[in-house]
Amino acid sequence: MSSDRVLNAAVLGATGTVGQRFIVLLSQNPMFRIHSLGASERSAGKPYAQATRWKMSEQMPAAVRDMVVKSCEPALYQGCDVVFSGLDASVAGDVEKAFVEADFAVFSNAKNYRMAEDVPLCVPVVNTDHYAVVQAQRAARGLRKGFIVTNSNCSTSGLVVPLKALQDRFGPISRVMVTTMQAISGAGYPGVASLDILDNVVPLISGEEPKMEAEVLKILGGVAPDASVCAPLRDLRVSATCNRVPVIDGHTECVSLEFAGQPPSTDEIKQCLREYTCEAQRIGCFSAPAQVINVAEEEDRPQPRLDRNAGAGMSVTIGRIRPCSIFHVKFTLLVHNTVLGAAGASILNAEYAYKKGYIV
Amino acid sequence: MSSDRVLNAAVLGATGTVGQRFIVLLSQNPMFRIHSLGASERSAGKPYAQATRWKMSEQMPAAVRDMVVKSCEPALYQGCDVVFSGLDASVAGDVEKAFVEADFAVFSNAKNYRMAEDVPLCVPVVNTDHYAVVQAQRAARGLRKGFIVTNSNCSTSGLVVPLKALQDRFGPISRVMVTTMQAISGAGYPGVASLDILDNVVPLISGEEPKMEAEVLKILGGVAPDASVCAPLRDLRVSATCNRVPVIDGHTECVSLEFAGQPPSTDEIKQCLREYTCEAQRIGCFSAPAQVINVAEEEDRPQPRLDRNAGAGMSVTIGRIRPCSIFHVKFTLLVHNTVLGAAGASILNAEYAYKKGYIV
Amino acid sequence: MSSDRVLNAAVLGATGTVGQRFIVLLSQNPMFRIHSLGASERSAGKPYAQATRWKMSEQMPAAVRDMVVKSCEPALYQGCDVVFSGLDASVAGDVEKAFVEADFAVFSNAKNYRMAEDVPLCVPVVNTDHYAVVQAQRAARGLRKGFIVTNSNCSTSGLVVPLKALQDRFGPISRVMVTTMQAISGAGYPGVASLDILDNVVPLISGEEPKMEAEVLKILGGVAPDASVCAPLRDLRVSATCNRVPVIDGHTECVSLEFAGQPPSTDEIKQCLREYTCEAQRIGCFSAPAQVINVAEEEDRPQPRLDRNAGAGMSVTIGRIRPCSIFHVKFTLLVHNTVLGAAGASILNAEYAYKKGYIV
Amino acid sequence: MSSDRVLNAAVLGATGTVGQRFIVLLSQNPMFRIHSLGASERSAGKPYAQATRWKMSEQMPAAVRDMVVKSCEPALYQGCDVVFSGLDASVAGDVEKAFVEADFAVFSNAKNYRMAEDVPLCVPVVNTDHYAVVQAQRAARGLRKGFIVTNSNCSTSGLVVPLKALQDRFGPISRVMVTTMQAISGAGYPGVASLDILDNVVPLISGEEPKMEAEVLKILGGVAPDASVCAPLRDLRVSATCNRVPVIDGHTECVSLEFAGQPPSTDEIKQCLREYTCEAQRIGCFSAPAQVINVAEEEDRPQPRLDRNAGAGMSVTIGRIRPCSIFHVKFTLLVHNTVLGAAGASILNAEYAYKKGYIV
Repeated sequence: MSSDRVLNAAVLGATGTVGQRFIVLLSQNPMFRIHSLGASERSAGKPYAQATRWKMSEQMPAAVRDMVVKSCEPALYQGCDVVFSGLDASVAGDVEKAFVEADFAVFSNAKNYRMAEDVPLCVPVVNTDHYAVVQAQRAARGLRKGFIVTNSNCSTSGLVVPLKALQDRFGPISRVMVTTMQAISGAGYPGVASLDILDNVVPLISGEEPKMEAEVLKILGGVAPDASVCAPLRDLRVSATCNRVPVIDGHTECVSLEFAGQPPSTDEIKQCLREYTCEAQRIGCFSAPAQVINVAEEEDRPQPRLDRNAGAGMSVTIGRIRPCSIFHVKFTLLVHNTVLGAAGASILNAEYAYKKGYIV
Repeated sequence: MSSDRVLNAAVLGATGTVGQRFIVLLSQNPMFRIHSLGASERSAGKPYAQATRWKMSEQMPAAVRDMVVKSCEPALYQGCDVVFSGLDASVAGDVEKAFVEADFAVFSNAKNYRMAEDVPLCVPVVNTDHYAVVQAQRAARGLRKGFIVTNSNCSTSGLVVPLKALQDRFGPISRVMVTTMQAISGAGYPGVASLDILDNVVPLISGEEPKMEAEVLKILGGVAPDASVCAPLRDLRVSATCNRVPVIDGHTECVSLEFAGQPPSTDEIKQCLREYTCEAQRIGCFSAPAQVINVAEEEDRPQPRLDRNAGAGMSVTIGRIRPCSIFHVKFTLLVHNTVLGAAGASILNAEYAYKKGYIV
Repeated sequence: MSSDRVLNAAVLGATGTVGQRFIVLLSQNPMFRIHSLGASERSAGKPYAQATRWKMSEQMPAAVRDMVVKSCEPALYQGCDVVFSGLDASVAGDVEKAFVEADFAVFSNAKNYRMAEDVPLCVPVVNTDHYAVVQAQRAARGLRKGFIVTNSNCSTSGLVVPLKALQDRFGPISRVMVTTMQAISGAGYPGVASLDILDNVVPLISGEEPKMEAEVLKILGGVAPDASVCAPLRDLRVSATCNRVPVIDGHTECVSLEFAGQPPSTDEIKQCLREYTCEAQRIGCFSAPAQVINVAEEEDRPQPRLDRNAGAGMSVTIGRIRPCSIFHVKFTLLVHNTVLGAAGASILNAEYAYKKGYIV
Repeated sequence: MSSDRVLNAAVLGATGTVGQRFIVLLSQNPMFRIHSLGASERSAGKPYAQATRWKMSEQMPAAVRDMVVKSCEPALYQGCDVVFSGLDASVAGDVEKAFVEADFAVFSNAKNYRMAEDVPLCVPVVNTDHYAVVQAQRAARGLRKGFIVTNSNCSTSGLVVPLKALQDRFGPISRVMVTTMQAISGAGYPGVASLDILDNVVPLISGEEPKMEAEVLKILGGVAPDASVCAPLRDLRVSATCNRVPVIDGHTECVSLEFAGQPPSTDEIKQCLREYTCEAQRIGCFSAPAQVINVAEEEDRPQPRLDRNAGAGMSVTIGRIRPCSIFHVKFTLLVHNTVLGAAGASILNAEYAYKKGYIV
């Protein structure tokens, strides 16, 4: 990677939990230098260490402690090569639009533009082929350099990885039933009240199920022949049930699925998952995991506490692969919800974009 | 209930977690007097308070503190009208057989005889009609008074309640997909290691899924025309996925189901569940809950910490009733795994048996 | 208690966690009928079930579900015999003052008036003798019937019980070092964020340590000879360290203490604690526990999950009584922080006041 | 460190939780190569991945997966330069003795030889001066190269760090009262049952309090003038209370202490703690933390989830430094119980020993 330059990165929403994860990951990534931190007016003007209630298990990187937080106005971010957004959906719409129109390359974790047809909703170990619509996006909006790529909902991120691997090898999947057990970090801070989750399960995550059901179709779909828009799948039905459990990081998902055609054997499925690779690996992106999918050997895995850090949080771990008495196959997967499920995906998206020449 | 006599009850496996729950519930039940406590040779001869590591949130009833624990030999239990078994499956087979053959009425929580075709596998708010096989059971084994009735696996107990209500009103159900999030108390003591469950989910409960898938068919089925054996359903397919979560009591189950015929509306389902009653209620059993099924009003319920004690642990709480994009309807249910799911079911089974004249 | 009338009770701050606990306890108490529920303007006018996010493990009593919440103006509470305040300290000052001046008998869990010298700060199993200042309080404020009695901070409630028992029998205590491990319910709802407490301990509870250190002196002190004011202890030094731990209900406190004079033996201390009784018991108050102090037999007790419900939450459980290598004795105590530590104390205070003729 | 050679390391008790931590830490340490893994007869002969139930959040290092576990006989460990023992105390006594007598350099986490007067009980950021007795130890036992150094109990490890810093600058400490809140990982696997710790605190850790009270005196003491034995402090009194809390890693300790002489101010104490350094740092040991003591800025720190990984688990974090109303100063400290409190200490002890020429 000797010819690569180090990219100046901004993190918007830097004081939130996703923003904190961006900072931890970027501080360990040789491709980026944290250049600017953006947050709400309330935080702007303060040193980051003062503006933030740091909630990561990792120590706050020394480089950001004294960095003065900026408000989220594009004019203040000159010199940034990439802008990562961990903004709350309530403000992300306007702010991200402003940055894109100011010709920044924006990589967003917010939901606002995920379903826009000319915006890649990209899980970078799955569908980097959707970058093909970036040209159309720029053209439609009259942009020279600016564009936006979003990553998916955290639960979606985990689910699409095996679905993509299986679909590529064994043909279309017709039905997917998924029940999640999601970590509290997905709700931000203060997020879930402790009285709601100690010795408890909350069987609803507001808005999560429709998001999963829709995003999967877009991610597993393709791009229109003229590369103008994404082309979601039409013949897959997804039914999601989402629960919150007393786990700090790592979403566990119990999946049952049916293939449209002749189903493979359990062994063929295991082999397919193990062998799955993605373009971000092949072109040498720093954050791409060595192994996209870890197939767990032990029968009682994956477990969030033990497996969430596999591949530095960028791998998906899958276990309990077995026949389903109703559909064809059942398995349980685990995804690190704030790494591959959020900040890590955005960062790998940016690495990919840079390697492929989208960041100019 | 003035003409009812108080029954002398024995609890086998009295030092275990199910045994402890039996003791708490019996001490609050006017139909029973705790007469004898049975446990392993290691405990026999000791006062109960010494033999036991008490793990209930309720205080140990004063009446049992000094009761001397017996070994599990039928000859030591003269004067007992009913025998409750919270024995471990590794010993329940032989011990329960000996008590039945000694002409005791045995109500067992163990799995050993659940699938025997002339043994009722009875969730007492669901299928007390299976008591019809008791006569055949006695005849086949040459018993005068003795018989055995088992209750189901804790997860099964919750699931069959709404299935029974729906099947009775709307006809056969063809497919049921269920994913559970089960409490640690289901594994006994010491049971689940804390390193396995704090900040974690364990995606396997050994042997649980096949038990659920088989037991549901027997419980929702009927009895052969000659009342000689139980007649499990043949046309229902159940696919179960069982997880352990950091919850002390209360199993949460996410269910999706398909009716064989024309499906009812969500409102019709809610009404059906609310209106469901059972014979144990109608004949005035003490432990029968006033409301078998609580349909939760709030969209984020049921929750184990808040709902497990509904109906003193004998009600099932159901919420999030909504259409499924694959099957017909989805909902989430909660059952108290050591009350309706274990000791409470056995006790209500015994109350029912007494009221119906089976205990002689 | 046949000659007792049932008192009409109001609960202010009825939608909060302390208010919810008041409602649960009052609904189980034959001395009271819940007459009125008061809360903020935001809740006023709504049925209680709608205005409240119920977080108790006990089901919401049917009697309050449809009761319309009132704002906290005394004129709306005619017919109430006692007013319980679970108000937040930010509003309790003015509201409680208004109710007292409107001649209501107010029993408050708020901190605002605890240290006022003519207001009893009363843990009802400890210092009901402080009611002697009520006459002076009325006189000073020109009240006919109205008065206010406060209960203590939840941590203080547990600590003073053994201190009182020991001081009464063995003379003054000179030094008390206490480290607490406090439950999340003490912080209300939403209160402690789950990201702050899962797999964690928070070593600070803001303002708690000075409260404990001051309240103990007042409670263990007496009343001035002319009964005009309370007379706090002067020669006791208390050093408190307060921590939050992932426990739902029940504060655990590790105590080391030094007597001013000749110290008793460990056995004498155990006997003293076991034998301790209070006036609220002797005059037959419904909520007074049969045993004020449970001395745990097992060496690994008290434990919050197992012991918090002792005496329906009104007993203190004490264990690990042993010599201290620095002071004279060490022990660990457990108090139910929302029962004896909050709502239960207020209710027993009201029962006592009624029995002694203060409620007119 | 270019002239350093890589040492071949054996880990005894390799399948236990301390053994697993040794493996994780050694695999990240350039000074060591894992050469041999020893465990009980039950595990011997199996590949490590099969013999072990891995419970670390970090993935099992690839290098050990297929390494065949040996039994703990010295003859099988030829070629090892250092032997780390994570053995259970029930077997450590004999096994460690055998390895020492076979002339191995043994670094043990077990308690068996900690209080032997010619064995350094060494917290490597505190009292590496105790290595002075190694020569006497060898002489007394007729050893040429072999010797044993132990690390302390996990709770002790954290406590002695600030005590050493303060004692060195401000003179003798006379009294220390400490109350701990200890993580479950300290109890090994399966260790603490989940029913004992979810929503709970256990106020006893068997044998822990006397260990802390004795070990502190030895560690903070010196070495006899002739370097024949360690010379524990005589004039310090320590009173310890130990609790188990639902935390995975990281012991929190609330400390109050009194100086023998004139006490320093809070600011002087903070400065002293911040400035503390140790010889292991000065001679460039790999595992020595950059900062031995982190003085937390925020008033609600240290917290185990946020601070346990400070200095890769080798730093102690201290906060809430404030006057005590009874003794001179109070503070709260956090130590990673399986890193500085166990395996990390042994490894740093070995690094120090190598740098100083003890490993020959």
